[in-house]
Amino acid sequence: MSKLIYAFNDENSSGKDLLGGKGANLAEMTRLGLPVPDGFTITTEACNAYLASGESLTSDLLEELSDAILSLETRTGKTFSDEDNLLLVSVRSGAKFSMPGMMDTILNLGLNDENVEKLATKTSDARFAYDCYRRLLQMFGEVVYGIHMSVFDTIFESYKEENKYELDTDIPADGLKEIVEKYKEVYLEETNKTFPQSPIDQLTEAVEAVFKSWNNERARIYRDLHDIPHDLGTAVNIQEMVFGNSGDNSGTGVLFTRNPSTGEHKLYGEYLLNAQGEDVVAGIRTPQEIEVLNTQMPEVYEELVGITKNLETHYKDMQDIEFTIENGKLFILQTRNGKRTASAAVKIAYDMVQESVISKEDAIMMVDPKSIDQLLHPQFDDKALETAERISEYGLPASPGASTGMVVFSTERAKALGEAGEKVILMRPETSPEDIEGMVVAEAIVTTHGGMTSHAAVVARGMGTCCVTAVSDLKIDGENGVATYANGVLKEGDIISVNGSTGQLYLGEITKKDQEQSTEFAEFMTWAKEISRMDVRMNAETSKDINAGFEFNASGIGLVRTEHMFFQEERLIGMRRFILAQNHAERVAALDTILEYQQSDFEEIFRLSGERPVIVRLLDPPLHEFLPNTENEINNVANQLGVTTELLKSYITNLNELNPMLGHRGCRLAITYPELYEMQTEAMLKSLIKLKEEGIETNLEIMIPLIVTAEEYKTLSDKIKARAESIEAEAGVTVNYTVGVMIETPRACLTAEEIAPLADFISFGTNDLTQLTFGFSRDDAGKFIGEYVDGALIETDPFQSLDINGVGQLVKMAVEKARAHNPNYKVGVCGELGGDPRSIQFFNDIGMSYVSCSPYRVPGAMLAAAQSVVK
Amino acid sequence: MSKLIYAFNDENSSGKDLLGGKGANLAEMTRLGLPVPDGFTITTEACNAYLASGESLTSDLLEELSDAILSLETRTGKTFSDEDNLLLVSVRSGAKFSMPGMMDTILNLGLNDENVEKLATKTSDARFAYDCYRRLLQMFGEVVYGIHMSVFDTIFESYKEENKYELDTDIPADGLKEIVEKYKEVYLEETNKTFPQSPIDQLTEAVEAVFKSWNNERARIYRDLHDIPHDLGTAVNIQEMVFGNSGDNSGTGVLFTRNPSTGEHKLYGEYLLNAQGEDVVAGIRTPQEIEVLNTQMPEVYEELVGITKNLETHYKDMQDIEFTIENGKLFILQTRNGKRTASAAVKIAYDMVQESVISKEDAIMMVDPKSIDQLLHPQFDDKALETAERISEYGLPASPGASTGMVVFSTERAKALGEAGEKVILMRPETSPEDIEGMVVAEAIVTTHGGMTSHAAVVARGMGTCCVTAVSDLKIDGENGVATYANGVLKEGDIISVNGSTGQLYLGEITKKDQEQSTEFAEFMTWAKEISRMDVRMNAETSKDINAGFEFNASGIGLVRTEHMFFQEERLIGMRRFILAQNHAERVAALDTILEYQQSDFEEIFRLSGERPVIVRLLDPPLHEFLPNTENEINNVANQLGVTTELLKSYITNLNELNPMLGHRGCRLAITYPELYEMQTEAMLKSLIKLKEEGIETNLEIMIPLIVTAEEYKTLSDKIKARAESIEAEAGVTVNYTVGVMIETPRACLTAEEIAPLADFISFGTNDLTQLTFGFSRDDAGKFIGEYVDGALIETDPFQSLDINGVGQLVKMAVEKARAHNPNYKVGVCGELGGDPRSIQFFNDIGMSYVSCSPYRVPGAMLAAAQSVVK
Repeated sequence: MSKLIYAFNDENSSGKDLLGGKGANLAEMTRLGLPVPDGFTITTEACNAYLASGESLTSDLLEELSDAILSLETRTGKTFSDEDNLLLVSVRSGAKFSMPGMMDTILNLGLNDENVEKLATKTSDARFAYDCYRRLLQMFGEVVYGIHMSVFDTIFESYKEENKYELDTDIPADGLKEIVEKYKEVYLEETNKTFPQSPIDQLTEAVEAVFKSWNNERARIYRDLHDIPHDLGTAVNIQEMVFGNSGDNSGTGVLFTRNPSTGEHKLYGEYLLNAQGEDVVAGIRTPQEIEVLNTQMPEVYEELVGITKNLETHYKDMQDIEFTIENGKLFILQTRNGKRTASAAVKIAYDMVQESVISKEDAIMMVDPKSIDQLLHPQFDDKALETAERISEYGLPASPGASTGMVVFSTERAKALGEAGEKVILMRPETSPEDIEGMVVAEAIVTTHGGMTSHAAVVARGMGTCCVTAVSDLKIDGENGVATYANGVLKEGDIISVNGSTGQLYLGEITKKDQEQSTEFAEFMTWAKEISRMDVRMNAETSKDINAGFEFNASGIGLVRTEHMFFQEERLIGMRRFILAQNHAERVAALDTILEYQQSDFEEIFRLSGERPVIVRLLDPPLHEFLPNTENEINNVANQLGVTTELLKSYITNLNELNPMLGHRGCRLAITYPELYEMQTEAMLKSLIKLKEEGIETNLEIMIPLIVTAEEYKTLSDKIKARAESIEAEAGVTVNYTVGVMIETPRACLTAEEIAPLADFISFGTNDLTQLTFGFSRDDAGKFIGEYVDGALIETDPFQSLDINGVGQLVKMAVEKARAHNPNYKVGVCGELGGDPRSIQFFNDIGMSYVSCSPYRVPGAMLAAAQSVVK
Repeated sequence: MSKLIYAFNDENSSGKDLLGGKGANLAEMTRLGLPVPDGFTITTEACNAYLASGESLTSDLLEELSDAILSLETRTGKTFSDEDNLLLVSVRSGAKFSMPGMMDTILNLGLNDENVEKLATKTSDARFAYDCYRRLLQMFGEVVYGIHMSVFDTIFESYKEENKYELDTDIPADGLKEIVEKYKEVYLEETNKTFPQSPIDQLTEAVEAVFKSWNNERARIYRDLHDIPHDLGTAVNIQEMVFGNSGDNSGTGVLFTRNPSTGEHKLYGEYLLNAQGEDVVAGIRTPQEIEVLNTQMPEVYEELVGITKNLETHYKDMQDIEFTIENGKLFILQTRNGKRTASAAVKIAYDMVQESVISKEDAIMMVDPKSIDQLLHPQFDDKALETAERISEYGLPASPGASTGMVVFSTERAKALGEAGEKVILMRPETSPEDIEGMVVAEAIVTTHGGMTSHAAVVARGMGTCCVTAVSDLKIDGENGVATYANGVLKEGDIISVNGSTGQLYLGEITKKDQEQSTEFAEFMTWAKEISRMDVRMNAETSKDINAGFEFNASGIGLVRTEHMFFQEERLIGMRRFILAQNHAERVAALDTILEYQQSDFEEIFRLSGERPVIVRLLDPPLHEFLPNTENEINNVANQLGVTTELLKSYITNLNELNPMLGHRGCRLAITYPELYEMQTEAMLKSLIKLKEEGIETNLEIMIPLIVTAEEYKTLSDKIKARAESIEAEAGVTVNYTVGVMIETPRACLTAEEIAPLADFISFGTNDLTQLTFGFSRDDAGKFIGEYVDGALIETDPFQSLDINGVGQLVKMAVEKARAHNPNYKVGVCGELGGDPRSIQFFNDIGMSYVSCSPYRVPGAMLAAAQSVVK
């Protein structure tokens, strides 16, 4: 049996896997000589053993726990019963990955009816002692026995009201004593148990509660959201209490070594005097900015600054530190890599390279590719802001962004409306872990309480959701569904705009402008591009998108969807004539009317791209998508085409398919109607020739979609090449083009060794390939895919992140087959999974030449590609 | 360069691949010392080289050809110009596989304006010489220059009419001379060329024409129909002519060494005196039965009987022989394994084992599994036949079977109506290769001319299509679309019934009785079952089907489709209530109304099967299949269920899917509604328990469809097992069942190493697997799959015969993954491909435990399974 408990100063103590992030840090800080309160850590293995054994504590663990306490008592010179040196401890969860607010914490453990008096006597402060005790009763009751916090809160607030106390600190010791008695009655009423008086019983029950909390619903949701495996387990840290609420010479605070919102290199944090940690985080009292400590306690501040510098150099990353001051003495309770906004992440990474603290590769690893999106989203237009009606004078810019949506006051309504497709702004006095689901669907989160480190702020930054906190001049009445502000009232459904970068709220919708990227970001992205092995292309066909993608340094275009060019009015007529044509000549005549449009569309794309490669996918959707649906449209179109409504309807019926996804589409259309791809080839070649005559070099890659057999590919590519050659011959000019295959059926993957040698390149269409590998239609699977993800029946939604075991295996097989005779064969990915970091890692590992995604996902993909190399 | 020409007596001559079937036989017969006219064979390689080189004869070939002729002239002592010993030759195609009537033949080659006179002088028979010449002109014109036969026929028939000649043989030499001159004019008119006078030019042009004919459309259709590859090429046989039309002491005939229709061990054939071969086959003159030759030419008959015995012993198979008698001397022109009906094949194979000519394994290989179907088809009911109105007094039973359908008089109409889903009877004076497409779609073929070896008869037997020939008292007027018989007139669309086993035609539809199998067949099938390694199960759920399958010796049931049990009125209501239920309790209540029905259905199936294994597939189709479609039905059902029409419609809309094949179906339903599979499990377990209590042992295998991940399978199988255990516990009885997985998605194949260890067995659903691997919906792919097969873009229709390269690769991979840790893991196939011989061969080779198919396909599958082992 391996060791289940490690003291913080244990020389053999292990890493995060076993001790959790918090435990490993406490051990590391202890080794660094920092002023950390003494304690020990129960390992994640102990937690897993507990959960695996049907939730019972093993005798091994109980023995080790008893030894660890004896040893802690020896080291601190305190015991759970000593009158002069009373030992009180905190019990905190600490998993491998930080899960703020998700797991449970109990402070002041060890207090009981006797010890509270000892503490009162020793500190000559009965009020403090009873405040500690009532806090213990409250937290223990909630965490261990599941008594709802509001039960205690009601008693506490009623007592304050009855006795006309304004602040918590106004309540005298006797009052707290009275409250403690009432709290103890609650235990009896709610659970039929008394509060355990033995500190050891308290401790073992608390440890069990932490273990159990690993599997509570909020924790599971958080892990799903952050791709954290469910089988890691949590460690438990038991640590000597130090008291920030020991009087006005005490206090507690949290700080970041750099600004987590902007990345500015300056301490950023908050503290409260005469308070315990949760007072800061919960956001009930508004804390002081950290600089103020320099005037209130200059020596402590100086010590703190020194420690933060050491920690940053040691961890090579911005730190998020919790500290407590007990009677003028500084204790560091916790340090960890700080969460930050995307722009802060980029600035911190950039600055730390400039400061020679880290390498460019380190810097690349410090920014989450998924967060890059935040930097690229539009901001409110400045002019529009000038005239917009402001709702509030206060509000902290807790997570940047600019969002507009309808106000909702509860997670339930946020979910209901959000899932119905509405954009919602979740407005709450403060948020708690119960609100996670509402926060996930919200466009923005607004709270009236709490600071920059409140639950709402931390979680919103993690999700990249716009957030404003501490809007203290807005009063929320959740029960009646209204929020009152200086000049009016907001009801559910009212539209407001939230500026997470300034902390301002506005009535109504505000127009947005495009985001400008910082020079740090631009420089950072060039590092990413340098480090990447794979190219990143964009999926785009409009000038606007193409320009955006090239601004983000896309290497080329990985997918031009030509069907988008058929849907404008005048082209649609041509396409419909084509569908109704009776023979080859009529089909050619109909397509001729589209040819010119296609040619000028292509010319624009090729002109913007120049020598950068452009993959054009030939027409893909089934023909019925080009025919009208409603009775009215059918009549109009029949008129336009000069046919009877009956005839048109017969075509519509005839083209109707039971499973269009598996029907007459993609290159199958061109097997039946070769004219289609011949026309598109003609349009492309003619525009290439025109550009060449203007002196513009181009690099076209023609792609045939939905191939299932080598013979099918050969038939079509021969026809395309023949048409291209005849157009070149006619013009007396040769241009630069290749022909390749889009692999999106399992069969094409399985037979890639036959197909690849006939083609110049392969591009994987991961969307269709995923649909066919699973037998999941993207359109229909929505009904059940959630159940599959929630029930852990599939690892991730395979349309959002590559199914590595299944679809990935097919892709890998196809790449290997294609490369069997030519190790440099060009293979890429053009499905949207090409923008997903986890998928990009896989594509890098199997040697993909490039990935392609929508323009705004290009920087994130580029960063993920770089990280894939560094990893 | 390998040798391109082999003389028949060449000691180094090769096999069928190079010489074709006919050439190899001629060489073999020559070596056996049979009286074969001398000659040589141009190889299939020469044909392929010709086709590959863009259809030009290589100088190598021309040189070898010239040498071969010189050598033939030396051996025979004849030359192309010798006055006394004039050499004339036949030119015939001969591919590796016999393709009757498909390829072209030219006789009398070497005749020209001079040689015809030499022949006339030498034989003192100018009529004979000019008849040969006009035949050459006619055949050469058609085969080499593509002049339509009817052009020559019209001239010939007009001449007969003008001169009042009734029979061809009535025309004197001068008449034929006149006709020859007219024929030569036709050459000039139709092609602007004269008939080549040089025998060598005739020969090279004829060889080219044979080479080209390999790729004519009729040949391609025949090959597609018989799964013959298109790249084999044909050999060309050039052989000294002998003349069956040299006078009344000459003749020609064809014979089978056993009866090709019944298998009876007795010579079976026809001959004509003073005629050439095509006169017999074309069916224009009605030939004599072979026994008559014994009276007309007893010595020749005796020699013939001796030769047939030798040939059968030598080739170990029934032979199809062509012979010619020239002035009393017998020549064997050709021998090959004879085509035969399925019942003849079985009887011949059985008899030859009894005669100790062949082994049981040889016997198994002599019957085509695809033909077995013919033996199982119903026959007309005897009683019904007694009162049925007969159309004709004559008619030969050319290919057995009993068919009813509507009369059509042309291939075009047969195709049009056949493809529209009508059953058609193709009625023609005689058939020719141009009629192939019509014959393929016809239920039966009726001709007024021709015998048992006519084109119609041979082709129909090959396809297993019912056929009656020589209905001489029926007069067909194709132009006016009527056929006149003694008592009336048939028009297109009239319904008739055709008995291919007796040669009778009847007006209207006649009821059929079930076919009884011969004892030879039963014995033959036990050999097949003994030799097979794989089991053959049936897909069935009705008592009738299950009984049929067990009569065919099926080893068990490979697929019970439980959805078939939900569609009866009273169950459908329950199912609809289930769909409309609001919660678990309502769902369970609705399913409870179906439970009893399911239980009694299962009881019936398990009772019939006893200890033989039965795979029950849990509910598979999407729920919308259980809801009504039409406005009227919707109203009725809403009434029945006591809900508003609007509500019911909203459910229908809600369940509607864009691609139901890829939607909420299969086990996905049970993920959402576990109650479904739990109810089915309860029904199965309760019926097993009841049977066990009656003392009946059973062997249930529960199968979960459409699995994509191991976790999904585990979740569902755990629930099924839990429910089963609780029912066993309740009854205090344990029963025999296992739970397994239906693999029908590519992903399940790719991850079979994860899924298989959790399951007791795997059964592959090849239909869905094929749909997903190709991205072809069976319902929609009909629109283009024909183009794919015709254009050779896919090897075969993958829904009819396994796509070995793609789908087969996935299946093989999954079998290997499943067997990695357990070499005996049970794997089977339950898609309809389990009845296809080519697919069965593959399944045998990759170690499948069993295949399963519809009951009437069981014997064919069993035979194919046995052949797989012998091969």
